[in-house]
Amino acid sequence: MDTMILEIMKEISVKTESRIVLIVLDGIGDLPNEGGKTPLEAATTPNLDRLAMNSALGLLDPIYPGITPGSGPGHLGLFGYNPLRYWIGRGVLSALGIGLEMGPNDVAARGNFCTIDESGKVVDRRAGRIPTELNAKLCEKISSAVKEIDGVKVVVRPEEEHRFVLLLSGQDLGPHVSDTDPQKTGLEPLAPQALDKDSEKTAKVVAKFVDIVKEVLKDEHPANMVLLRGFDKLPHIPSLQELYKLTPCAIASYPMYKGISRVVGMEVLKLEGHGELLEEKMTLFEENYDKYDYIFFHIKKTDSYGEDGNFDSKVHQIEAFDAVLPRILAKKPDVLVITGDHSTPCVLKSHSWHPVPVLLSAKYLRYDPCERFTEREALKGSLGRMYSMQLMPLMMAHAGKLKKYGA
Amino acid sequence: MDTMILEIMKEISVKTESRIVLIVLDGIGDLPNEGGKTPLEAATTPNLDRLAMNSALGLLDPIYPGITPGSGPGHLGLFGYNPLRYWIGRGVLSALGIGLEMGPNDVAARGNFCTIDESGKVVDRRAGRIPTELNAKLCEKISSAVKEIDGVKVVVRPEEEHRFVLLLSGQDLGPHVSDTDPQKTGLEPLAPQALDKDSEKTAKVVAKFVDIVKEVLKDEHPANMVLLRGFDKLPHIPSLQELYKLTPCAIASYPMYKGISRVVGMEVLKLEGHGELLEEKMTLFEENYDKYDYIFFHIKKTDSYGEDGNFDSKVHQIEAFDAVLPRILAKKPDVLVITGDHSTPCVLKSHSWHPVPVLLSAKYLRYDPCERFTEREALKGSLGRMYSMQLMPLMMAHAGKLKKYGA
Repeated sequence: MDTMILEIMKEISVKTESRIVLIVLDGIGDLPNEGGKTPLEAATTPNLDRLAMNSALGLLDPIYPGITPGSGPGHLGLFGYNPLRYWIGRGVLSALGIGLEMGPNDVAARGNFCTIDESGKVVDRRAGRIPTELNAKLCEKISSAVKEIDGVKVVVRPEEEHRFVLLLSGQDLGPHVSDTDPQKTGLEPLAPQALDKDSEKTAKVVAKFVDIVKEVLKDEHPANMVLLRGFDKLPHIPSLQELYKLTPCAIASYPMYKGISRVVGMEVLKLEGHGELLEEKMTLFEENYDKYDYIFFHIKKTDSYGEDGNFDSKVHQIEAFDAVLPRILAKKPDVLVITGDHSTPCVLKSHSWHPVPVLLSAKYLRYDPCERFTEREALKGSLGRMYSMQLMPLMMAHAGKLKKYGA
Repeated sequence: MDTMILEIMKEISVKTESRIVLIVLDGIGDLPNEGGKTPLEAATTPNLDRLAMNSALGLLDPIYPGITPGSGPGHLGLFGYNPLRYWIGRGVLSALGIGLEMGPNDVAARGNFCTIDESGKVVDRRAGRIPTELNAKLCEKISSAVKEIDGVKVVVRPEEEHRFVLLLSGQDLGPHVSDTDPQKTGLEPLAPQALDKDSEKTAKVVAKFVDIVKEVLKDEHPANMVLLRGFDKLPHIPSLQELYKLTPCAIASYPMYKGISRVVGMEVLKLEGHGELLEEKMTLFEENYDKYDYIFFHIKKTDSYGEDGNFDSKVHQIEAFDAVLPRILAKKPDVLVITGDHSTPCVLKSHSWHPVPVLLSAKYLRYDPCERFTEREALKGSLGRMYSMQLMPLMMAHAGKLKKYGA
């Protein structure tokens, strides 16, 4: 069914002047606190309230009832892909996120700088979350020591804090290599294992890489070793251009979201600062609005505060978004959707499987009884309960970008 | 999933005395007018209101959220087939609609009489919508001139106004031939192209046919040429008899709906007049009610008025249906469903993707809060939001025609 839908989208989508804006408040869905309110209910959001009264609301299942999505699958769904069919490895997301180009022969992994003790056992999987500057210096040191292994080009680049990316380029590199991260302290880093025959060369190269790095870092502290995980190649995912004839862009500040945006063909607009950058994102939105017909606008902190169990800060982040919402509305997008990639309930301090409220603002809507953008109100909404992946055809329809199917 | 459901239907359906009536108010779903009301809300419908109070309501997605269906896919869904899997070409619908028998070797196309100028360019794609009588005369003239081309039998039969059907019968005729209709004036008719190797013979025959017709019609005016489109063969669609053990009939006056009814195995009851014929249809319904256990009753004008943007006439058509509803209820069908194949909002003057209200009247229903058959009320209904193709199993169940699945 879902592959048929993408085929049909390709066939019936048309290029028009209309504009779609998708705002993702990461991890926005939540559960009631002791006072019986979710962050969306506790927040004071006059602009969102007014918008909700004139919009269609509903609830999205990011993947399938009961399935808690990672950020990758959560966003793939919102971009119209079945997250069960399309998979992007963490290593690939990280590599693309920091702007590395990946070819079809490349394998990427995500790395952590970590601390090992004299016996070689991991005592801190994140090396005390070293500052990004030190990370960059260590990546340079590794890069000087190892540029190639058995004819395979090796690239090491810093992400934020203790995280970096390893990119291997060469012939015959299968992507299926096991993680070296033991996932808990007190154990030695694991030896990389080929999980199929095609990945044996990759595993061998990774093993040599780890040995070299251990030697290079042996006098450093606390970052005296690395852990690797999420080996993968670039998947073939048909782009939003190809499927929907869109000219899409992404406004996101965190590497992973930039990465997934690039995989589906979005141009990632350049932000100068680091962190949430709501004001800088808004300026970028306003400056670039006319150049694209699909804008993905990502807000991370709602999820981060959910993960921290910080209810009040999640509420404030929602209010901060509410304050800039009029600037988005001022552009009068033909279709505006506000939703999340998944729920991150403060009480759980993690992603969850609970459906996510969604709001769709467009011209041709019917009666919808919702008065606020909250989990409780969305339950009454005219969109009902949908899968995240069904949102994309609906946004396209409301933007007048889909022809009739069949005579 | 949908193919599994049809397999299961075949296995668990049983023949019983109970009767199902499916009323399709074509294009019934709509959007609010300036007064905030849809045609269903604006109409005075005492009988429908009373029925709604004792029925289960909901909203149907004809195909998939966001997808605007043509009439073919819209009806296939209501008849229980996944419209994305089953496809009926326009030529086939037209041929069956006017009562032509189609075998597995036949290829049908829809034709338009058109007007070309001296240079051969199309100046009117519909030849001023010539009357059906003239159409019939021209079809006869063509039929006299060409009965066979390269061993392929050629049949030309009038539809209404400027539309006719071309039916080719012979060996090795693939259906994949491009349209000759350039879709706009100022261009010459296109040469028919084979879109695959199996259709090369068909394309050659069609090219010769067009040349002959051009010669035959050269002194006619305004209908001095033809345009062809929608070449196709009869698809293999398992019938309602085969799947559900039904003895189904259709009461419909427009060729296309008669055509699609025949494809799924319905007997199309003969109407003498032309047009909407509500009174004649009602008589036919009453006379034939006892002979069938599934009756598809089609009303076209709700869609036509939507296409015209004629809100008031759509309202009146709904009221006209409400007036005859007691005669349908008097037969006490075990299951009565009232819905549409898609929405045709007056404000859009075209089919749309908006879900369609559905009403199901049967004996074993739970509480349902709906007080009228309207888009707004249906939002609260106990059927929730379903795909059109899911309606058929539900009607079968309420008619007591489905055994338990599994022990």
